[in-house]
Amino acid sequence: MAAAIPEQYQDLLQKKAFAHLGTVMKDGSPQVTPLWFDYDGTHIRINSAEGRWKDKNMRARPQVALEILDPDNPYRYLQIRGKVVDITKEGADAHIDSLAKKYLDQDKYPFRQPGEVRVMYKIEPERVSAMG
Amino acid sequence: MAAAIPEQYQDLLQKKAFAHLGTVMKDGSPQVTPLWFDYDGTHIRINSAEGRWKDKNMRARPQVALEILDPDNPYRYLQIRGKVVDITKEGADAHIDSLAKKYLDQDKYPFRQPGEVRVMYKIEPERVSAMG
Repeated sequence: MAAAIPEQYQDLLQKKAFAHLGTVMKDGSPQVTPLWFDYDGTHIRINSAEGRWKDKNMRARPQVALEILDPDNPYRYLQIRGKVVDITKEGADAHIDSLAKKYLDQDKYPFRQPGEVRVMYKIEPERVSAMG
Repeated sequence: MAAAIPEQYQDLLQKKAFAHLGTVMKDGSPQVTPLWFDYDGTHIRINSAEGRWKDKNMRARPQVALEILDPDNPYRYLQIRGKVVDITKEGADAHIDSLAKKYLDQDKYPFRQPGEVRVMYKIEPERVSAMG
């Protein structure tokens, strides 16, 4: 069962806050990347493109960490540890467009690269802690 | 030899930018935490307290990752992967005070907890990439 995001921090899921995603490389060392996200009520959903480091890492080692910092107060944040439970191309293009709407107020994702295949990942929160 | 921070991104080392530190837990899963940092010209220096998760993780598994996002432009950031090459209590109290000066413009770190033992970690950058 997914861990719940405390109600008094759910505003962070709606704001233009970035998620700082931690994944683990093949050699066991960590990697951290900022990215857009949304929340479907149960899962944190993120979006990347096939073949990137984070894509490879999440397919091979699905345990991930997310830190989500309040853009209006950097001393207030969520730390989420969890597992990638779904990786899909289906709906991934519509999903990146909806994230462009959330973060840029644009209907279409403007940074698409030629030939890039978008992928959506659903992360099930297992442990959630909040600060500030 | 430490990797260099590209000159056109060195402003990020001086600004009140947070570092998002990725470490790895005993079970191989990642952890991400926001924290203050400074740069001594070679190493990224961070500060924590004895016994915290990140302290335990860095002592056991010194390979870490840092992502440093420009507070004035979230699409501009540094990603640094490297190794903790020094862990010391010596100077760690003065160091957290100097970080309080950088981030809060206060001479003394105001969040000290009773009994807490401050620790300073020096991270040698091994791979640096920049976006934006």
